[in-house]
Amino acid sequence: MTQDCAKIVTENRKGSGTMMDHNINSKREENKAMEKITQQTAEKPACRRLKRLREQMKKYGIDVYLIVSDDFHASEYVGDYFKCREYISGFDGSAGTLVVTVQEAGLWTDGRYFIQAREQLAGTGITLYEIGEKGVPTILQYLQSALRPGQCLGYDAKTVRAGYSAAIKEHLKGKKIKFEETLDLVGLIWEDRPRMKAELVWLLTEEYAGQSRSDKLERLREAMRRENADAFLLSSLDDIAWLYNIRGNDVAYNPVALAYTIVNEKDAVLYIGSGVADQSVEAALAADRVIIRPYLAVYQDVASLKKGMSVMMDENTVNTALREAVCAGVNVINRRNPTTEYKAVKNKVEMENMQEAHRKDGVAVTKLIYWLKKSYGTPEWEKITELSVCEKLEEYRKEGTHYLGQSFAPIAASGAHGAIVHYEPTEKTAIPLVDHSFLLLDTGGQYLEGTTDITRTISIGEIDERKKECYTAVLRGNLNLAAAKFRHGCAGANFDYLARAPLWEMGLDYKHGTGHGVGYLLNVHEGPNAFRLKEADNSIGTVFEEGMVTSDEPGVYLEGEFGIRLENLLLCKRGKKTEYGQFMEFLTLTLAPFDRSSILPEKMSDAELTLLNEYHKRVYETISPYLEPEEREWLLAETAYLPKTTS
Amino acid sequence: MTQDCAKIVTENRKGSGTMMDHNINSKREENKAMEKITQQTAEKPACRRLKRLREQMKKYGIDVYLIVSDDFHASEYVGDYFKCREYISGFDGSAGTLVVTVQEAGLWTDGRYFIQAREQLAGTGITLYEIGEKGVPTILQYLQSALRPGQCLGYDAKTVRAGYSAAIKEHLKGKKIKFEETLDLVGLIWEDRPRMKAELVWLLTEEYAGQSRSDKLERLREAMRRENADAFLLSSLDDIAWLYNIRGNDVAYNPVALAYTIVNEKDAVLYIGSGVADQSVEAALAADRVIIRPYLAVYQDVASLKKGMSVMMDENTVNTALREAVCAGVNVINRRNPTTEYKAVKNKVEMENMQEAHRKDGVAVTKLIYWLKKSYGTPEWEKITELSVCEKLEEYRKEGTHYLGQSFAPIAASGAHGAIVHYEPTEKTAIPLVDHSFLLLDTGGQYLEGTTDITRTISIGEIDERKKECYTAVLRGNLNLAAAKFRHGCAGANFDYLARAPLWEMGLDYKHGTGHGVGYLLNVHEGPNAFRLKEADNSIGTVFEEGMVTSDEPGVYLEGEFGIRLENLLLCKRGKKTEYGQFMEFLTLTLAPFDRSSILPEKMSDAELTLLNEYHKRVYETISPYLEPEEREWLLAETAYLPKTTS
Repeated sequence: MTQDCAKIVTENRKGSGTMMDHNINSKREENKAMEKITQQTAEKPACRRLKRLREQMKKYGIDVYLIVSDDFHASEYVGDYFKCREYISGFDGSAGTLVVTVQEAGLWTDGRYFIQAREQLAGTGITLYEIGEKGVPTILQYLQSALRPGQCLGYDAKTVRAGYSAAIKEHLKGKKIKFEETLDLVGLIWEDRPRMKAELVWLLTEEYAGQSRSDKLERLREAMRRENADAFLLSSLDDIAWLYNIRGNDVAYNPVALAYTIVNEKDAVLYIGSGVADQSVEAALAADRVIIRPYLAVYQDVASLKKGMSVMMDENTVNTALREAVCAGVNVINRRNPTTEYKAVKNKVEMENMQEAHRKDGVAVTKLIYWLKKSYGTPEWEKITELSVCEKLEEYRKEGTHYLGQSFAPIAASGAHGAIVHYEPTEKTAIPLVDHSFLLLDTGGQYLEGTTDITRTISIGEIDERKKECYTAVLRGNLNLAAAKFRHGCAGANFDYLARAPLWEMGLDYKHGTGHGVGYLLNVHEGPNAFRLKEADNSIGTVFEEGMVTSDEPGVYLEGEFGIRLENLLLCKRGKKTEYGQFMEFLTLTLAPFDRSSILPEKMSDAELTLLNEYHKRVYETISPYLEPEEREWLLAETAYLPKTTS
Repeated sequence: MTQDCAKIVTENRKGSGTMMDHNINSKREENKAMEKITQQTAEKPACRRLKRLREQMKKYGIDVYLIVSDDFHASEYVGDYFKCREYISGFDGSAGTLVVTVQEAGLWTDGRYFIQAREQLAGTGITLYEIGEKGVPTILQYLQSALRPGQCLGYDAKTVRAGYSAAIKEHLKGKKIKFEETLDLVGLIWEDRPRMKAELVWLLTEEYAGQSRSDKLERLREAMRRENADAFLLSSLDDIAWLYNIRGNDVAYNPVALAYTIVNEKDAVLYIGSGVADQSVEAALAADRVIIRPYLAVYQDVASLKKGMSVMMDENTVNTALREAVCAGVNVINRRNPTTEYKAVKNKVEMENMQEAHRKDGVAVTKLIYWLKKSYGTPEWEKITELSVCEKLEEYRKEGTHYLGQSFAPIAASGAHGAIVHYEPTEKTAIPLVDHSFLLLDTGGQYLEGTTDITRTISIGEIDERKKECYTAVLRGNLNLAAAKFRHGCAGANFDYLARAPLWEMGLDYKHGTGHGVGYLLNVHEGPNAFRLKEADNSIGTVFEEGMVTSDEPGVYLEGEFGIRLENLLLCKRGKKTEYGQFMEFLTLTLAPFDRSSILPEKMSDAELTLLNEYHKRVYETISPYLEPEEREWLLAETAYLPKTTS
């Protein structure tokens, strides 16, 4: 799944059950269908909702109201309760910020959502601001010009990162702007707002976590001592789940629980929904001196930190309300959560388990591809749609042991749908598979042995030369990045070129990062490691360490025609060590065949063909023992040695 | 010439004449020879000089004294007058900082000078601090531990960049350290100190500069207006030369004059040595409302800037004394000099001229290589040394029109000398060319049509397979970087990998950047464009624009064995433009053959061989018309199409 951009979330609105309950059927039925229908009628819900929002703004003397995408924890994926921006605007991409004034409304989103946002905002009166395009003002610039001296800017401080509200205030300083931070205006008008989730928390045993809670806490406390911090405030949901070896089910696809925590020198407090930790969880936590308090009690506890104390927190993830609850006189040490760095570097058990998870996942994806290829041209073929492909894959995944559910909403995009980077099929939009084109299939699973994320692009029927050329270029980029060998000290910006170069030669490109970090039975998007040309601060990014898992997913998206993306996860490993330093390399975790009939071997270098053939050999050797005879036979042919020229 | 690291300077101590006077013979004779001899006796000059320096420290109550490498202008190359660190320590690398306490003395330098510094510091009692190596403290860390509260740190503020002294003060704050910034203690004990140079300034006509002084001033004033700056203080010598279309001769190899300037809204003042501008220069400057004042008058003029005024300057290049001359109440806008950005982007005339300069330079280098190859095994061969190679090359360069001299001290390193990244031969060290090894030849010229910088590594006699493998890997890196095609927006960190990858595959590396910007008849090292894995601030570096010229110079250095470096200059050009953006590519300016007998074509990909063959074809077509028949015949064979396997 592409980086930074995440997903078009369509969550299970039933909001019940465990991870296993993210059943595609029920999810699809209830989902976007309603809104899609509504969008075709004269007035969109957004018009009505904007009007009601403006009434509230007027009532509370707010001139400009800001609605971000975050929950209280700066999560990338949020529960339905938190989808205020989607509720008002109708735009349901994962990244987007809405600014509403008395006269205007504007939505800012990035390159991956331009097409989708244009469609979803049509007829709402909301202006689309395409981030990064020429002449498009930033949100800060817009606020600067929209707000007159003395006017009032409002937002819900619990949803705005402390670092972001500080940047807003810095940008507007000298303008005598008033800030109203306590009101959730959308909450005031949202009649059927979903409940905030608070599902049962469960323990991940050391057999899967690979490191005990007490060891993790000890390491964290060492970092606290180095920083002279008396306490560490953490609000990132996946970091909390990692630290305490717990998992939850409060955000679709992400096995995390809504929680905060404060870690002290000797003990720790986990703030969590009432009743979500049963006795066994409570006892396990208590054994490591972690006590449980109510979810919202964190605000009081932060407020009661004593003057002279030092508290460590990351203002880029802690929300404004929490940051502002800290009394004057308490020293705030603002730095990236150490847990984020620890979590990104998988331990030995996690590294081994993830290979196992990918074996199981590879078997499912391979079976799915075979099923598709076999079904082509049969009577059964007519019934296959983008949605039924997802269902079939889910069936295959469920055959694997320890499978807990999908790691994000599956992307199955046929024909021109493939060009919409995060197209996700619904009952309304799903189409039968377009002949002579591609099916782009980007899916992932959650296993006790880790999180997977794989994209394969599958040709349907005969495809023309141009599609093959594009496919081959994307494949070359994927293989070349995975083959990088480098001295320790390199980061994403040093390699991104490898994945893009074959496309750049053709004047093509993709408007998303090349790869994101991936969690262990946690979020499919996890920082800080990534493959990007540069980070937002213009830096090269995080240095690759052994144990980091990063996706490698170049693509091509030709609007109105087709899309191609090929994604494998790469595990960073130590290679040889010489007098020049420690050398590093990647092990490709993902194991499923590339689409043989879409590859033009004559467009590949000898080295690239060798990479492909070696990868396919590994795929066959690892996956084939788990296949039926006919599947195995097909995989043998699909992964057979591909020479320079076919004839 | 490698990046950041510059050179082992051995300047013409006669200090007279024009660029043409950088005669190798005279330079060599007077140079390091004396010190080399002294180094072999019991006590090195450093011991005596340190003792005298400490007497001065005691006299003025200074506990720790800091000696940097800079002149008053933060130049990379400095005049002999400014070589205080070299005078005291005996270490003459371009980069190094000396810290002297009552008991200790330490010298900090980077990876390119470790071998050289170890040798030159032996027996001096000065500790070498190898920057970037494990466990080595930074200068700031060292100062922090060496200085006790209440003690005094001294340095000559005119030689320390304002940004650096600010960083020191920030780091030591709370320790109640006293700062003595006005004393040049080295000046007090340096008896035969060379005079500060002040040679005649000359005008570079628009035919070569490509843009008029008034146009440059107008563009600069636009930037000043955007920043609301009333004045712009500039002390970088090459920026001043570029801005006013003047050249000088106050720093060896760099055709610049010691100068400061203040640009106001309507006029400008050039502060320069008395009598160095003749009437024609004065008149030309006056026509653009640039008046001339004495060199040191800038300190008074800066001090008399009025409260409420805004002055723009770059605290990373302006020295501490100049910065501190600014009165309180004057607003300082600290930003990179706009001239640095303008200068880096060569205009059309400069771009065309530089191709011409490289044609002439390529003819000289090609002739030199032929002469070497032809001489091998003849009676004449025995007389050839590292030094005489440099002399011969200089003869060939002088045959070109508009040749003004060398752009840096030539590096001619045979056999194991090649492993010393910046080895420069002297009368004492120069050896005959080692058989069955390499001669590494890194030289450059100054022409009216621009600055060149080229490294070729030439095999002498038959060489073994390992040397050929290393040569081929370096060549592959050089070719692959030059062939990069990329979307506008990329910077050096995005490509550096291309040059290193073939070496990293072998567990090898080089401890210098891959490439530096190059001036136009200015400094051979010029910012801000570069090829590096990352910049000092961890950023990806400067975005490549059409007109930027950057060196591409990977290498291998095996201590005690041999060194290889291959360097071409690359001109960034616009390529095709598609809906994905403006694509960019490089034109290789440097034109001279690679060493055919050192290349293992079977170790190169088809694409790499094509790059080599295309480059060699261009070399032959461009250079051959200027050669003698026998040279031409040789070049034809040397650049002939190289197939995948030779037999």
